[in-house]
Amino acid sequence: MIRVMTRWLDPDEQQTWRAFLAASRALMENLDRELQRDAGMPHAYYEILVRLSEVPDRRLRMSELADLTGSSRSRLSHAAARLETAGWIRRQECPTDRRGQVAVLTEAGFAALAAAAPGHVEGVRRHLFDALSPAQVDQLRRISEALVVHLTGS
Amino acid sequence: MIRVMTRWLDPDEQQTWRAFLAASRALMENLDRELQRDAGMPHAYYEILVRLSEVPDRRLRMSELADLTGSSRSRLSHAAARLETAGWIRRQECPTDRRGQVAVLTEAGFAALAAAAPGHVEGVRRHLFDALSPAQVDQLRRISEALVVHLTGS
Repeated sequence: MIRVMTRWLDPDEQQTWRAFLAASRALMENLDRELQRDAGMPHAYYEILVRLSEVPDRRLRMSELADLTGSSRSRLSHAAARLETAGWIRRQECPTDRRGQVAVLTEAGFAALAAAAPGHVEGVRRHLFDALSPAQVDQLRRISEALVVHLTGS
Repeated sequence: MIRVMTRWLDPDEQQTWRAFLAASRALMENLDRELQRDAGMPHAYYEILVRLSEVPDRRLRMSELADLTGSSRSRLSHAAARLETAGWIRRQECPTDRRGQVAVLTEAGFAALAAAAPGHVEGVRRHLFDALSPAQVDQLRRISEALVVHLTGS
């Protein structure tokens, strides 16, 4: 009989994990609440508009957009429907792949993003970067990059 | 006229922020998916059961439970209703405060937590700690603690 022992967390790891959970949750809740209040969109929608704004013709296949925003296809479809109703994106059939769809940022969507960006960036700075030393910002980047490679292989 | 300039993120900060977002999202999605698959609960429910399991009589006021889990009252109420349907908690009127309610972990809830814990802790270790050096674990703890103080004042 093979008995696999659980590798329980030691007290330092436990404290690290709970602090990380609390910090990341509080950070995202602050940013989400402020974006909703000031720009009428949650952070997930903001991120979709950002990604579309950064590519040529401001258009991406839905599958690429899902990868870039770390969304499931179903969650992205739901968000895209809401963004389309707001007039901020359009969805079109993909010209080179009949099964695919592309999302296109509209002028109104670009304007909504441009209006939201200064307040949101200020929030990221105030809630995250203002609390950290330059060395900690560097540490957080290396830790986060290591986790992204570990978890997503990219 | 006072013109307030946006403190835009420099490229290093931008990279740190995007990597942090991608890492924390991928981490929570992995843990959520595994808990749902193996124990039939999302991470938010697991955390409620953990908090109740750690206090005397395994009972907490709903307001304390909301604070400990970083939940809004409405989100916690929704989760508590689901956990009560599963038979894992009971809600009772608070004996010392007629307006308040307490949540009590049931034996079935404790058993569900005990069954879920080894796999979940293994997931936290595999997805988070296994990717980091001991120095990085220490850095992440200090960064997270600084953010918790900054964002929640506690």
